[in-house]
Amino acid sequence: MNAVVKAIFFDVFGTVVDWRSGIANAFDQAFAKSGADIRARDLADAWRAEIAARLLETAGDAADEARYVPLDTTHRETLAKVLDDADLAHRLGARERAALERAWESLRPWPDSVPGLRALRREYVIAPCSHGSISMMTWLAKSAGLPWDLILGADLARCHPPASKVYTHCAAAIGLDPGEVMLVSAHNRDLDAARAAGLKTAFFSRPKEFGKGQTTDLAPADAWDVIAFDLLDLARHMEASLI
Amino acid sequence: MNAVVKAIFFDVFGTVVDWRSGIANAFDQAFAKSGADIRARDLADAWRAEIAARLLETAGDAADEARYVPLDTTHRETLAKVLDDADLAHRLGARERAALERAWESLRPWPDSVPGLRALRREYVIAPCSHGSISMMTWLAKSAGLPWDLILGADLARCHPPASKVYTHCAAAIGLDPGEVMLVSAHNRDLDAARAAGLKTAFFSRPKEFGKGQTTDLAPADAWDVIAFDLLDLARHMEASLI
Repeated sequence: MNAVVKAIFFDVFGTVVDWRSGIANAFDQAFAKSGADIRARDLADAWRAEIAARLLETAGDAADEARYVPLDTTHRETLAKVLDDADLAHRLGARERAALERAWESLRPWPDSVPGLRALRREYVIAPCSHGSISMMTWLAKSAGLPWDLILGADLARCHPPASKVYTHCAAAIGLDPGEVMLVSAHNRDLDAARAAGLKTAFFSRPKEFGKGQTTDLAPADAWDVIAFDLLDLARHMEASLI
Repeated sequence: MNAVVKAIFFDVFGTVVDWRSGIANAFDQAFAKSGADIRARDLADAWRAEIAARLLETAGDAADEARYVPLDTTHRETLAKVLDDADLAHRLGARERAALERAWESLRPWPDSVPGLRALRREYVIAPCSHGSISMMTWLAKSAGLPWDLILGADLARCHPPASKVYTHCAAAIGLDPGEVMLVSAHNRDLDAARAAGLKTAFFSRPKEFGKGQTTDLAPADAWDVIAFDLLDLARHMEASLI
C-alpha cells in the first residue's frame, strides 16, 4: 500500500498542535492586566464551538469558490461574538485583542509531532491540508518548528475540509493522483472525506484535545489504512512498510 | 531597513539552482542509449531560450488569470519544439522524454545556496517566488534539499514574474505588506518588478549561469537594498543588519 504513497497531508488543529491549552493561555495573557475574572478554558471551548458552527454553515457552499472565507476572518468574527456573549469585549485593549485573534498562529505541537514530522519528511512530501489559511499555517509552522515541505489547504483549494475537493485539489497542485497521498487526522470525519476522495488514511487519537470530558474521536471509527498511537508511531509504521 | 523585513522571496532558476549544467546532463542521460550525437549545452540553451520567448509572449496577459499557463506545460511544449528543430524527437523513447520534461525538478543548487537558505530561515520566512509551479518547486526542493518554509510563486498568483502582481499577491498570502518582504534574484529585471511592487531587493551575480560567454546580470543594474557576493554572503549581510 505504502509503495505508492508519495505525500502525506495533515489535519493540524488537534492532530499536530494542542489548540485548547494554547488558546486558554492566550485568553489568560490577553486579560492578565484587565482584572477580569475569566474562565480561560471555557472561553477556548466557546470560541472553538463558534468556529465549528460557522464552518458547518458554509459547508454546503464548499464548492462555491466565490463564497470562500479564509479562517482568519472566521477567527476574528467568532472571537467578537464570544467576547460579546461573555460581556468581556470592553475589558480588552486593541493590542490584546489583535494578539488573541492571531493566537492560533502560536500554538504548541504535541510532544511527538515535530520528531514524527521530521522522520516522515525523509521519505515523503509533508504538508498541512486543513482549514487554516496559508498565512496562518506559515506563521504557526515558524512558531512551532513544524518542518513542512510546503503549505497546502483551504486557501489553495478555496474551500474547507471535509469537502473532498480540498484533498483532490491539493494533491493535483503537487502533481499527484489522490491515491498517491495519505491524509493523517485525529478526526474520523476528515478521514471519511479523504477516503471518499481516493486518498489513503491514517488515524491516531488525541485523547487530550478537548480536555478531560472528551467523548469523540477516542478510537478509529473505520478500518483506516494505518491506525497508530501518535505521530511518531505513525512514522515507525510508515518506515516499517518501506522495508 | 531590515527591521521590517519578515519574509524573503527567491527567484530560483539561476539564482538558487544551476539550471544549465543540470539540463545539459539531463539531455546527455536521455540520449545516452540512443547513439545520437548531441550537443547537450546547446540543447539546454535552446530550451531555455524557447521557454523565455514563450513567457515573454504571455507577459502582456499577466493580469489575466484565465490565460495563466503553468510552467510544466510550457516546459513540455517547448521541449517538443527543441527536439523537432534538432531532428531528435524520433531518437527519444517515451520514458526518456518524460524524464527530460521533468528535468527542472532535479537541478543542483549552487554550493552556497543550501547553507545560505538555512541561515536565513532562522530569522525569516523563506519561499521561492518564481515562474515555477507549486508542483515543480516542491519536487525540486525535495531533490535539492532547499529548506523553504512554504512554496509561493506563479501558480499561487496565476501570473508570471516579472508581473508585479506575483510579488504583491504572494506577500498578501502570508499576511504581509510588500515592504515587509525582500526579493532575492540574480536577475536585475526581477528586482525592477519587485521594487515597483514595493518590495525590498537583494542582488548577487551568478556569473556561471549562462556559461562562459555570459554577458548579462554580471553586476547590479541599480542601487538595490542589498548587494552581496552570493547567497551565503547575503545571509551574513542580513545577520549583521539585525544586530
